[in-house]
Formats: sequence, C-alpha cells, structure tokens
Amino acid sequence: MNYIKIVGMGEKLPVRTTEFNGMTRYRISNNETQISMAVDAVQEALEDASLTINQIDVIVSACSFGSQPIPNMSALIHEQIAKGSSVPCLDINTTCTSFISALDTLSYMIQAGRYKNVLIVSSEVPSLALNPEQRKSFELFSDCAVAMVISKDNHKESYVKFASQKTYSEGAHDTEIKGGGTAFLPNMYTGENDHMYQFDMKGKRAIRLTKDKIIPFVNDLRKSVDNEIDYVVPHQASLVLDNLMKRIGFTNSEYISIVKSHGNMVSASVPFAFKLAVDKGLIKRGDNVLLIGTAAGLHINGLVLKY
Amino acid sequence: MNYIKIVGMGEKLPVRTTEFNGMTRYRISNNETQISMAVDAVQEALEDASLTINQIDVIVSACSFGSQPIPNMSALIHEQIAKGSSVPCLDINTTCTSFISALDTLSYMIQAGRYKNVLIVSSEVPSLALNPEQRKSFELFSDCAVAMVISKDNHKESYVKFASQKTYSEGAHDTEIKGGGTAFLPNMYTGENDHMYQFDMKGKRAIRLTKDKIIPFVNDLRKSVDNEIDYVVPHQASLVLDNLMKRIGFTNSEYISIVKSHGNMVSASVPFAFKLAVDKGLIKRGDNVLLIGTAAGLHINGLVLKY
Repeated sequence: MNYIKIVGMGEKLPVRTTEFNGMTRYRISNNETQISMAVDAVQEALEDASLTINQIDVIVSACSFGSQPIPNMSALIHEQIAKGSSVPCLDINTTCTSFISALDTLSYMIQAGRYKNVLIVSSEVPSLALNPEQRKSFELFSDCAVAMVISKDNHKESYVKFASQKTYSEGAHDTEIKGGGTAFLPNMYTGENDHMYQFDMKGKRAIRLTKDKIIPFVNDLRKSVDNEIDYVVPHQASLVLDNLMKRIGFTNSEYISIVKSHGNMVSASVPFAFKLAVDKGLIKRGDNVLLIGTAAGLHINGLVLKY
Repeated sequence: MNYIKIVGMGEKLPVRTTEFNGMTRYRISNNETQISMAVDAVQEALEDASLTINQIDVIVSACSFGSQPIPNMSALIHEQIAKGSSVPCLDINTTCTSFISALDTLSYMIQAGRYKNVLIVSSEVPSLALNPEQRKSFELFSDCAVAMVISKDNHKESYVKFASQKTYSEGAHDTEIKGGGTAFLPNMYTGENDHMYQFDMKGKRAIRLTKDKIIPFVNDLRKSVDNEIDYVVPHQASLVLDNLMKRIGFTNSEYISIVKSHGNMVSASVPFAFKLAVDKGLIKRGDNVLLIGTAAGLHINGLVLKY
C-alpha cells in the first residue's frame, strides 16, 4: 500500500471568462501564460501545505502540452519557483489524465522513501489551440492550473487503495493536435493549414470508444476495491458526462460535474474538481475517492485514494 | 533495493549518414520517422527479450519531444506496436536524460509489483530542428531510437544500486527550442523567424554550468555507492566529453565515448551507448554501471545499475 496524503492544493483560473449557451469558459488574456498560471497555483498549494519550495523533494509537471518543446515543462516551472535550488523535476504525460498518472507513479517513489514531499502541477491553456470551426470543442475547453503537494503519510490513514491504467490506441486520432511535433513540424505552418495545428475532435468516435471501454474498466475497478467508493471525481471530458456516469452506474450525488460551469480543463480538470469537492465538503478526510478519466490516447486512468 | 534487469535491447540508426570533419552523423530520410524508428527498435528489443508485445505490462516513451503535441508519444508508439491491446502507456521526460528518469521511476513500480515487464523507448530526430547557422550544434546531433525491456529480477542479481537527479534551472535557456509550445505557438511561424523553432545552444554557458554542477554530483554519488563503479555510460552531450570525464576523474578505459562516431542522440544516447558497450563486452553481467548525463533543464541524472 502506498501511504500518501494530499497536504496542499492550489488553483488558478484565468480572470477572463466567456459564455456559450449559459456555460462559462475560462480563457487566458493579457500577461497570463501557461507558466504564470502554474506559478500562481503552486504558490497557493505551498501556502495551503505550510511548506516552502525548499521542502519540496521533486516537482512533477503533469500537463498534456508544454510551454516550449525544449526544455521540458517542469524545468520551466522550476525556473519560476525554484531557481537557485537543485530540486529535481520531471514531466509525466498521459494527456488529460496526466495528474492521475503522476499521482499514481510518484506514490511508489514516496512509499519507497525516495521522495517525501512531491509537488504536482497541471497547467493547461487549450484555448490557444482551438478551432473556431469545430464549435463543440471550441465551446468545451477552459484554461486552468492546479498544483498539489503530496506527502508521505506516516500515520497510514491516507493511501492509494487501487490504481489502474489501460490504453486503447485505436482511439489515438479521435482527439488530437496533428501539427507541431516531428510528424508535421511548426515550419510547415502556412496560415492556410491552421487547422492542422489546432485541436481536432471526432466527438462521436471518441464517445463511442469511451463508452465501450470505461464501463468494463469501472466494473473491474469496483471489484478490486470491494465497491468501497464514497465519491467520484471524473475528468470533465464532455457534455455527455452525466449520461456516461449514469450508464456506469453512479447517481448525481456520487460525483462532481462541473463541465457546464467550467468546461474541460484538460489535465487540470481532475485536480480542480477534486479541490472544489473538498472545498464544498463533498469529500471529507477518510473518504474513498475515485479519480477517473479518459484521455487522448485513448487512455483510461482510475485511482482510488483514501483521502 | 529495486531488483530490475535489462532483458532485451534494440536500436535503430537511420540509413543515411553525413560526415563533418571525419565525424559520422545519422539523419533520417525518405520514409523514416521518429515513430518508424521507435517501432524498429522495439521489435529488436522484444526479439532480444524473447517476449511478445502481449507480455509487456506498460510502454514508456522516454523522448524529449514527440511526434504530435496530442496525443502523447507513447500512445502513438502504442498505435504501431500494440493496437488492439489494452497495455497502458505513459511519457516520462527530462529531455536528454529521459531514459535514465524512466528507468529510475519505473524501477519502483516494478519492485512494488505493479508492472513486471516494462518497455522503455527513446526515439529522437533532432536533425529536423537544427539551425544550420549554429555549426556546433548542427554538426553534433544524430537521429536514433533505442528500446529496452526491463523486467523484475526474481533472482535479485540485477538491481538499481543508487539513483539521483538534480535540476538547476538557471540553465533552462542554455539549450532550448523556444517555439512550438504555448509560449510561442506554431501559428506564429512566419518563415523569417525559423530560428525560433530551431535548437539553440549557448554552448559555453551550458558547459560552464555542467562543469560546476556535475563534479560535486559525481563525488556525492561515488560516496553513496562506496566507489563501486565498474563502467560509466555518459550522455554523449558534446565534444568536450573526454575533457569533462577526465576532470570528473574517469580514465578513458572506464567509460564509453561515441560522440565523435555517433554524435549526441538526445535521450537515445545513453541507452544506445549502453547497448554498444554490452555488445562490445565492455559491460558484463554483474558490473556496476553508472548511467549519467546532463540534459536541457539543466537536469543531472545518475543511476548505478548492477547489470
């Protein structure tokens, strides 16, 4: 059992909002950047944990996409919050479920004593790469950053009860940004092929594959934890969330749904919704909380945390 | 102690070579891509391990840069080698030392029993983003892919003896690609600002910081392993490698130097040089091998593997 505890949480939503059919979406403006939002979230998380950056043993970027191709995102966050120190940092990426993957992976390093205090940061600015002609995705995403401090729980009250990931790459191109990497370089940008560098969502295909795979995934997971799930924090992937949760077998009061009020905030969705549920008293210490999501890949990640 | 064993290794060098002052560099051409090279390396590694992809429990991309911004690199590798399966995959990135970070991180998950057989892939095509006006870096890099299968060692003969990482972000911009992420988007490419999307190396600054930091890092590491290091596989960062290794205190026969014959192959350098040293009989089962490198960040990663 990996005994870890969330000891600090911080968030940053952009100041600017926009509305689509009564749904609020957050979009960076002026001097806000992916990095500046990450920094704001980190500062709040460290304060909440009553720790300074010098007490952090590793910084983990759990973002789907970085501020620069090189160096990696965590080094650029490090530069703003830890320059002059030697605290190590690394990036862990499973697109929208990166936070769950980072929590899962680092829980082993904490349990083994490699690191004591871990800072995980998910910062996303999807608004920069949306295609205005794809209304569904254009009106779905929000920018947001969340940071969490995870520590070893010496009291053994908080721990990862279960974690699992599966990847179904038949969905690799259902949600994607084709251009910008080595397959289709930035220098192939012409202006006319703008859409190649924008987010492309084949919504129906993505939802069909998700439905096919997530129901048996959750059924298996439930068995693994003897159905001991008090509350669910799902990735806010799309507006079909409520329908999907119902089909999986969760009632409205069992999970948090903020896709209408906040949208899909990529890797920041799960930790943001988690923090909100704690702030609202929907999650209490001792609860078994299922963090679950699907991500471009298609990845499915599930982790049950005794909070 | 994390008991893990390298049970299979595979590599792919591009067919095309070019020469600079008698130094060979490898560059992809025709139908070769970052993904195709990864696939070739994986197939060789699986054969070498006498395993099929169905026996792999997780696929880890340990690349500095991906084929697409979304989905993540491991999902795109998964699509070519594991489509139809549900084997999970994730990306771990510390730029040039990504392979060491992935080996280090996954060793905890293997030791704890989460995964038994892990496939780590480092595939890089730096030739696509070099600036011909920066001769030093233009003539330094090669494209290459390496894959390794790592398994739990039930005989407890092979293990990670020690691992450590430190990051010094005062060097975050000494080696970088500025454009292509959210700070400077692909759609800001004009043709005239090509260099913003190319690799930029402030060589002297990078070397100065490396020297400052790596000597005390290795001194500490040596103490942690009671000086039990039989052979060293350094990242082939630059032509000052021999000079640097001498200053650290390693003689020519104690480490592998292929920067003249192969160049800097980014994250593929360390696993490629490791494989070559094994193939040449320079590393034998039972040896304590130090994998060490610096990476854009600046990260320093060191791992002593009882091979």
